[in-house]
Amino acid sequence: MYFQISKYLGAIYRKSKIEINQQIQDLGVRATQGDLILFINDNPGLTQKQISKMMVLDASLVGRDIQKLIDNAYVIRHSTVQGYRTNSIFLTDKGVKLAHTLQAIIESWWYNCLSQDKSVDEPALAVQLANLYHNVIDLKP
Amino acid sequence: MYFQISKYLGAIYRKSKIEINQQIQDLGVRATQGDLILFINDNPGLTQKQISKMMVLDASLVGRDIQKLIDNAYVIRHSTVQGYRTNSIFLTDKGVKLAHTLQAIIESWWYNCLSQDKSVDEPALAVQLANLYHNVIDLKP
Repeated sequence: MYFQISKYLGAIYRKSKIEINQQIQDLGVRATQGDLILFINDNPGLTQKQISKMMVLDASLVGRDIQKLIDNAYVIRHSTVQGYRTNSIFLTDKGVKLAHTLQAIIESWWYNCLSQDKSVDEPALAVQLANLYHNVIDLKP
Repeated sequence: MYFQISKYLGAIYRKSKIEINQQIQDLGVRATQGDLILFINDNPGLTQKQISKMMVLDASLVGRDIQKLIDNAYVIRHSTVQGYRTNSIFLTDKGVKLAHTLQAIIESWWYNCLSQDKSVDEPALAVQLANLYHNVIDLKP
């Protein structure tokens, strides 16, 4: 019964985002900007178009938020990489520091939520979600 | 590393919702209304307040969409159940039929996405997501 996957996804996503985003906004960072920082930290050197596709976010939203991150010196855009014309997006040192802070906030939220309960096998779940993700966005791992 | 759980959740949720919602909207049902129909089918007899908490949806949004579902005869509200004053929400026969149609749409989408790939253990993942859900909304299973 594949539809069981959809059943809890929305509520899990909304609950975790609402509570985590409150803490992230206290740093003066908007929720989507925080997601972008974490994604670019894991995937440096992509174009805005690739980021938009892989995060399943509207391209104009991604463009606007990346510009704000550039304005705030969290992100830089390289127009040439190894002699090729491109528009590759990277974190600055300040951006990497923010990524680590955001990871710690998210880690702490999930730890509080799950560490007392042994019914969720976190490493196995993370692998399954990664595999699911690669299927869903049609990029084989 | 608990934060890995958050990593792919948003993109999986957005991608599956965008594509599934297009098909659901072709039936003349809004996305949140479809989610409510499926939830009430699984959890009959709850109050709006309980539904709002368990689905992690804004109470006024839930109230508005349930009223529309009542107007369209998919849902009924019982003000007394077994002699007690309450406001329990149930599906009508028409609502149950719609729930089955929605389940078939979602099933088919995930089947197309996952049936060729053996890296996602769907039954195990569904159990893990159910356990995760019960932790996240602070209701032990």
